[in-house]
Amino acid sequence: MRSEFKFIDSIRKRVRQNGGGASVLLGIGDDAALLKPAKGKEILITTDLLVEEIDFILDLTTPELLGHKSLAVSMSDIAAMGGTPIACLVSVGVPENVWKQPFLKRFYNGYLKLARKHSVKLIGGDLSRTTSKVVIDSILIGEIDSKRAILRSGARAGDRIYVTGSLGGSAAGLEILKRSGLSSHKLIRRHLSPTPRIEWGTFLSRHRLATSMIDISDGLSSDLTHLCDESRVGATIDSDRLPLAIKKSPDALTKALNGGEDYELLFTINPGKVNALPGSIKGVRVTEIGEITKRKGTYIIKDGERKRLKAGGYVHF
Amino acid sequence: MRSEFKFIDSIRKRVRQNGGGASVLLGIGDDAALLKPAKGKEILITTDLLVEEIDFILDLTTPELLGHKSLAVSMSDIAAMGGTPIACLVSVGVPENVWKQPFLKRFYNGYLKLARKHSVKLIGGDLSRTTSKVVIDSILIGEIDSKRAILRSGARAGDRIYVTGSLGGSAAGLEILKRSGLSSHKLIRRHLSPTPRIEWGTFLSRHRLATSMIDISDGLSSDLTHLCDESRVGATIDSDRLPLAIKKSPDALTKALNGGEDYELLFTINPGKVNALPGSIKGVRVTEIGEITKRKGTYIIKDGERKRLKAGGYVHF
Repeated sequence: MRSEFKFIDSIRKRVRQNGGGASVLLGIGDDAALLKPAKGKEILITTDLLVEEIDFILDLTTPELLGHKSLAVSMSDIAAMGGTPIACLVSVGVPENVWKQPFLKRFYNGYLKLARKHSVKLIGGDLSRTTSKVVIDSILIGEIDSKRAILRSGARAGDRIYVTGSLGGSAAGLEILKRSGLSSHKLIRRHLSPTPRIEWGTFLSRHRLATSMIDISDGLSSDLTHLCDESRVGATIDSDRLPLAIKKSPDALTKALNGGEDYELLFTINPGKVNALPGSIKGVRVTEIGEITKRKGTYIIKDGERKRLKAGGYVHF
Repeated sequence: MRSEFKFIDSIRKRVRQNGGGASVLLGIGDDAALLKPAKGKEILITTDLLVEEIDFILDLTTPELLGHKSLAVSMSDIAAMGGTPIACLVSVGVPENVWKQPFLKRFYNGYLKLARKHSVKLIGGDLSRTTSKVVIDSILIGEIDSKRAILRSGARAGDRIYVTGSLGGSAAGLEILKRSGLSSHKLIRRHLSPTPRIEWGTFLSRHRLATSMIDISDGLSSDLTHLCDESRVGATIDSDRLPLAIKKSPDALTKALNGGEDYELLFTINPGKVNALPGSIKGVRVTEIGEITKRKGTYIIKDGERKRLKAGGYVHF
């Protein structure tokens, strides 16, 4: 039986061959990794904990897709700051029976494939045994030009609210997945294999277009509330304008508002800069969905009526 | 019942009051934290996964001690590079019943107490539900002057091998803990509440004294092997010289070699620089225990005989 040290060494060899990561001085294999930040850059860092049966069901995904998603959710956070991901670490805990399967090798296949695509270097992590469940903690480091990070707190009354891509697809995919099992259905892929909107994030930062930004992980209603709370403003969105991923379904709107895990970007722009915004980047469009208000509270216009929008996204507790 | 967002907000308020962390531009509350690296510094990063029933037993510790240890083990990694810890993140997964107890509040009390002591700022993390067990991923960022990091790979034949503090105390403490339960026994505290050797690490880096360094987490025999493997050298240590934490016990030597979790620093020095080494720093002594050899393999002199030293520390798989 291979030992954990041999396994880590095999990952280390694969990563070394991948190259990339000019600012990485030292990766896997020492007590800590070492980075040399580029001049004039600031460092971003984010972490996401993924727990079996809470955040994923092993029978309803593949190790490769789980590896992809573990990194993708953290990339979405870096995208939401306007940053470029540069280096990652991942801690994985697995029970003995999973260790004996090719699970970990396949997990890293998916994880490293996405990392390579974005020239992100795996520089560390940890490996532990658990008593029964798989647990993953994804850690991602990004960089951004000084003073260009787009915070949640910058939205001002009058700013227009935009969202990338479409909403509700991940929740719809999860529903199909639970009903019909794993398949290559487009919406299931949206749930299991989200695409972080790195290009949109860096574009908005580089051109100083967005006043605030957040990624939609909990759900539009929750994440809009987070953004408004941090900016000390309110918002009104228009249900007719929401880019619904599933149009026919009767609960398409509910899924778009509360489904979560769409990993699209929600951002605000000063109305004077709206014209500088492209309609899409690399096939991913943006849609104006509402406006920031001085009056606090989040509202939605539906059937001509202005109703209170409750934060209804996912909560653990 | 409080929500997870309210809990995170309470932690954020506590951390804000703590101050510290000049290089932290943005902490808890956005999609990612933002750091501005000081000029001429490099960034260190390390992560440690702690799993209930594998790395700790809830009944055999307190939430405060567990909080302390979660951060301490990562601090030990930064110490082993010669770095100064500056900012931390922590991901915690707990089952519903633990969430309803004051566990998390007490965990953060212990975690933040150690962070404050070292002026380390909590800048992020994640909180998730689990189905049954507690899981913690500790992430620590350190900084170090350019080109001063002490790697595992720098040991050269003829270098003297040193270790801080004493060895085997943590394993002895765990034994007492399992036999007699939780108490304030000195060795139990060594196991549950290790002290990272930050002062020794930064001293060795600042004065360019050590050629290589690693912290003793797996056990002296394993960690010496890791260091030798990375440096492509061998080592011989002398059993009579080992600073044993428990002298009377018949397995004191075994515990010192294979017990692990002592979180002492193991380092090597060029013989020409040995005189510049102080005997102790802030009450923590160092002991010369052997020599690096050109010939690969790790050996121990015991009862006048030179025997092969097998890497016998802790392995998960």
